[in-house]
Amino acid sequence: MRHFNGKQIPEKIFGKLINAAHLAPSVGLMEPWRFIRITDAHVRKEIHDIVEQERIQTARALGEREDEFLSLKVEGIMDCSEVLVAALPDKRQKHIFGRRTLPEMDLASLSCAIQNMWLAARVENIGLGWVSLFDPPQIKQLLGMPEGSHPVAILCVGYTDKFYDEPMLQEENWAKRTAWENKIMTNRWID
Amino acid sequence: MRHFNGKQIPEKIFGKLINAAHLAPSVGLMEPWRFIRITDAHVRKEIHDIVEQERIQTARALGEREDEFLSLKVEGIMDCSEVLVAALPDKRQKHIFGRRTLPEMDLASLSCAIQNMWLAARVENIGLGWVSLFDPPQIKQLLGMPEGSHPVAILCVGYTDKFYDEPMLQEENWAKRTAWENKIMTNRWID
Repeated sequence: MRHFNGKQIPEKIFGKLINAAHLAPSVGLMEPWRFIRITDAHVRKEIHDIVEQERIQTARALGEREDEFLSLKVEGIMDCSEVLVAALPDKRQKHIFGRRTLPEMDLASLSCAIQNMWLAARVENIGLGWVSLFDPPQIKQLLGMPEGSHPVAILCVGYTDKFYDEPMLQEENWAKRTAWENKIMTNRWID
Repeated sequence: MRHFNGKQIPEKIFGKLINAAHLAPSVGLMEPWRFIRITDAHVRKEIHDIVEQERIQTARALGEREDEFLSLKVEGIMDCSEVLVAALPDKRQKHIFGRRTLPEMDLASLSCAIQNMWLAARVENIGLGWVSLFDPPQIKQLLGMPEGSHPVAILCVGYTDKFYDEPMLQEENWAKRTAWENKIMTNRWID
């Protein structure tokens, strides 16, 4: 996660980011993305606390890498300019086009929207971090979300004085990038 | 889905598209994307037949919109330049970072990679269509994929003489785009 400098995002640029997300392709033109903008400092703090709980749980689950994980900056909820919760809406079962055998295509579409926002933000020198360290039911309860909805991202958005040269987890020696040639096969799966 | 003109994609540009995908962010730097490039005409035909089966199943499931659905161009497997199957690899359960409560974040990362490829393709005047009309077990069997893997997209990639002015499903009156302002809420869910 970037280190944010707290500078406010002008409303016009914020709109551009949401619009970039909204221009993403979606399965059956379902547009299954919803964004909850957090402007209430109390709600932001509650979200931070929910993430902090899961950060501890994840650290424990990682066993021997617990301390290493705890030293990483994995969220920027209290220091970013804008916190957005990205979610899938309820009543999705009526959308059959492209989802009869692959219902999870709604998440795929929402992810495309977030990636669009990510790239649009970078053009504006705005950093974005996707936090998935949280317990979905806790976020749903906090934000009054309906039963069939599903929060999938807490987005930390804001200006930063410095972008990482490499992915942060590589700079911190958590994991290594590989070459793209390792990700492609021809005609048949190869282990 | 675009109408492809069949012109071959130069190998260098094909590499750029895969590389753009591979530059996507991923949960815990997991890079959970795999692409199977289909160069065998027989395998391509088998994929087409699997999609055609699901196209009929989906049409039936749509009930009163069956005929309307059947008139749409929902795939371009036989006329595009490159067919790629995008999949999640097996042995994903060891990746806990960002996935303890949200294991589906691997699909989110793969979707970000595909969206990157989509945008990179557009820059080259190459169209891309994401087909999710297929039964995953049939694709797995055809391509010898391991049990824990999961195919999520058949990507049809190729040059086109004309891009749609609006999303194809809007041009064909299947669905209507909405304004992005409908997708954003503040601090609390609103129906």
